[in-house]
Amino acid sequence: MAAVEERMNSNPLVQPLLTDFYQITMAYAYWKSGKVLDNAVFDLFFRRNPFQGEFTVFAGLEECVHFVRNFHYSDSDISYLKTVMPSTVDEEFFTFLRGIDGSQVTLSALREGSLVFPRVPLMRLEGPLPVIQLMETSLLNLVNFASLVATNAARFRLAAGWDKGLIEFGLRRSQGPDGGLSASKYCYIGGFDATSNVLAGKLCGIPVKGTQAHAFITSFTPDEFPHVGKLQPVDKSQEPRDFYPVVCNWLKKVTPVLRVLESEVHLGELTAFSAYAVAFPNQFLALVDTYDVISAGSQDRFGRFSLSIKTYQAMPVKGSRCGHEIDTFGIGTHLVTCQKQPALGCVFKLVELNGDARMKLSQDIEKVTIPGKKEAFRLYGGDGRALLDLMQRCDDTPPSPGKRVLCRHPFDEAKRAYVCPSHVETLYHVYWKNGKICSPLPSLKEIQEHVKSSLTLFRQDHMRGLNPTPYKVSLSDNLYTFMHRLWLNHAPIGELF
Amino acid sequence: MAAVEERMNSNPLVQPLLTDFYQITMAYAYWKSGKVLDNAVFDLFFRRNPFQGEFTVFAGLEECVHFVRNFHYSDSDISYLKTVMPSTVDEEFFTFLRGIDGSQVTLSALREGSLVFPRVPLMRLEGPLPVIQLMETSLLNLVNFASLVATNAARFRLAAGWDKGLIEFGLRRSQGPDGGLSASKYCYIGGFDATSNVLAGKLCGIPVKGTQAHAFITSFTPDEFPHVGKLQPVDKSQEPRDFYPVVCNWLKKVTPVLRVLESEVHLGELTAFSAYAVAFPNQFLALVDTYDVISAGSQDRFGRFSLSIKTYQAMPVKGSRCGHEIDTFGIGTHLVTCQKQPALGCVFKLVELNGDARMKLSQDIEKVTIPGKKEAFRLYGGDGRALLDLMQRCDDTPPSPGKRVLCRHPFDEAKRAYVCPSHVETLYHVYWKNGKICSPLPSLKEIQEHVKSSLTLFRQDHMRGLNPTPYKVSLSDNLYTFMHRLWLNHAPIGELF
Repeated sequence: MAAVEERMNSNPLVQPLLTDFYQITMAYAYWKSGKVLDNAVFDLFFRRNPFQGEFTVFAGLEECVHFVRNFHYSDSDISYLKTVMPSTVDEEFFTFLRGIDGSQVTLSALREGSLVFPRVPLMRLEGPLPVIQLMETSLLNLVNFASLVATNAARFRLAAGWDKGLIEFGLRRSQGPDGGLSASKYCYIGGFDATSNVLAGKLCGIPVKGTQAHAFITSFTPDEFPHVGKLQPVDKSQEPRDFYPVVCNWLKKVTPVLRVLESEVHLGELTAFSAYAVAFPNQFLALVDTYDVISAGSQDRFGRFSLSIKTYQAMPVKGSRCGHEIDTFGIGTHLVTCQKQPALGCVFKLVELNGDARMKLSQDIEKVTIPGKKEAFRLYGGDGRALLDLMQRCDDTPPSPGKRVLCRHPFDEAKRAYVCPSHVETLYHVYWKNGKICSPLPSLKEIQEHVKSSLTLFRQDHMRGLNPTPYKVSLSDNLYTFMHRLWLNHAPIGELF
Repeated sequence: MAAVEERMNSNPLVQPLLTDFYQITMAYAYWKSGKVLDNAVFDLFFRRNPFQGEFTVFAGLEECVHFVRNFHYSDSDISYLKTVMPSTVDEEFFTFLRGIDGSQVTLSALREGSLVFPRVPLMRLEGPLPVIQLMETSLLNLVNFASLVATNAARFRLAAGWDKGLIEFGLRRSQGPDGGLSASKYCYIGGFDATSNVLAGKLCGIPVKGTQAHAFITSFTPDEFPHVGKLQPVDKSQEPRDFYPVVCNWLKKVTPVLRVLESEVHLGELTAFSAYAVAFPNQFLALVDTYDVISAGSQDRFGRFSLSIKTYQAMPVKGSRCGHEIDTFGIGTHLVTCQKQPALGCVFKLVELNGDARMKLSQDIEKVTIPGKKEAFRLYGGDGRALLDLMQRCDDTPPSPGKRVLCRHPFDEAKRAYVCPSHVETLYHVYWKNGKICSPLPSLKEIQEHVKSSLTLFRQDHMRGLNPTPYKVSLSDNLYTFMHRLWLNHAPIGELF
């Protein structure tokens, strides 16, 4: 856990003031209304999967747990808040704020790296109303982008297949320093093998990889070619050899084979490649599109990659030629900015207060919240694949293997079905309670493996990129009835329709 | 400057390891090739304005200056790098890395908050090749998102007009904690009045504002209504008054006027509003869409805002009614994620090495870089509006007011024109040289004002949202000729076309 804590504490911006101002003003109104000890249950969930897909990877949990654990206002926070709150605010409110922490909060959640679906809460927070309200924005901030980019990474992974290398290259186009760090971390969770971001390597232990920039290529000139230095053969017992005559020799041999002229080879570029080989004799690579090759003269089927092949073949040290194939992809901007949909819409809703269910109504059914403190289960069929998620009221009997259970569509009265699961997974685990972390927080690598294995537990038609089938999320009969009764009670009675 | 430094040092993630791994490997190859003292000039620029617009707001400069100022590798950085670099790397390279800093680097740039256009470098870095190369990714990271979101904010500001309030509400959907902080800071620069992000308020001095959450409304029930407490009248010499009878009294008066039934009023919601009024007697506000109003019964032209009006009118303390209008917008997700285009494509290209111009060629003209160390000028017409930007070689005579100068299109030989400016602005200022900050770094407020005044210096057809006219960027005749000669020299000679 020590490594984890060090990692988490590396970003001092994750603190209680990383919140929307209205949380502070609402906390004051709660305090003023005597609601300080009201026991609240809030659900954190989203209403629609991102990228027109039908699944989401849940990420950001560990940071949330540490946020709740470290939650308190410093003296300087309080001093600042006094300057922005209206002068009519009672002084004792600030004493109250100074004294609160996360010790009375219970945080339950799915395992980080689980697949999650619309309306099923990813996280449930229970505790004093103003304290939980004050945590809302930070928790949303920590979960929204983490889950979005982990989902995006998982989608790239599914598209590329498991045998290709995937490297995240997004740092320069991300939302600032931490946007870049978060992207690297959660892309790794979502299934990437490595990142170009060195700080993510240092702080999170993610493998780092990289290629070359055009600046490197353009910094070398033809007149430096004769001075490229000595190359150390793989066999370390051999002395380093002058590389220039070797390259010249091979250049003469390969140009006729590839049917290109020696004049077509940009000697500055060749010098850069040679210098790189001298620096990295066992890890050579070459960026081939700095000076575009006029491919009219070259007849090989690789088109603009001809120079790459030429270069590769000019390297005598590794000895054998081997087949060229594209086996690794580096992805930057589109991955980290989630171009296709740059935000996940997680929300944080009050669902119960002092034991009474609460709900937000809306004429737009999509915005109605499912009231009350709930449990959630994932029901699996005989083939080991997930059938659906089922939400229940906490006092409902949990579903069990081999027993049929009535599963209802949340809003469509007519849509309901009996399901007989072969296996039942309880989705919520308690991560923080009574001031203690009470479930293990796995390493990034373990979370990555959990994502990978989770992706295999769902039918392929839910996972596919094009026109995926929605995975079903259902309510127990009891929860359905309860919700719709509450809805009716809250809907105002108007004139005759 | 002290406040600035404290602000900048608040994010420890801005450090040399916040970079792509290839910068380290390339630095090693430079070192290995004896290019440690090569004097390089790099340009940081973009090729296309974001959001299908024709301008960009330059932001992030101050953070770049501080990054260069603080640039050095710690012992723990070096230890980490030793674990990820190949074992063939010479040990002395790490001694070299441990010793470098930004003292030999010169950073020139436009003023932060200036409008910038494609191909004109926003920033120019000059100094030892490997040192500047090692700074590339961090500088791009600091400029790309900052400029993107500042531009987005400026576009919202132009669309809303200068008389409306604009508040940034994006923290929960941003790319993690710092993504949120950067967004708040640079939206403010771009023309927003305030943010909901309290930490941005504390660290950057931006005004904070907020409204209410549905959770606040749903946390109150009708049975709490009689206990809403006492309201302090504006006249502080008066005693606080019981608010419940006042609200009941007004409710009876306003419902018939608004032609709604008392049964349509959700008493829980009214309790929440009343409690908020008690907490904030001088700053009342109400979130009106928690329990949707059935607007069939209400005939007023405000539709779903009827409850807001009702509530407003139920507040007797402020006394007079006043006209309702939408005078403030709160914008969240679309603003901070830049939904329309979530990344600005700034690049960092080597343009000169040891006094020799370098260029990246491409069959795709858009990707060709403009070689050499350059100066840039903004030429203004007699009406005070900017006519075009002009890039020159450093030894060209600068343009001067009243003297005509030939301005050439960078790629189209036929497009050229004489321009006679009334006023000439030198675009680059030296911000960092010889280990010292050498131009003032203005406050956020001053940068915001610079953006505002800059926006007025361009013709409206460049600024408009729909089909804006491109602002012209040109080369001096000398630079044009120089670039195209170099281009020819670099293009490989192939077989007969």
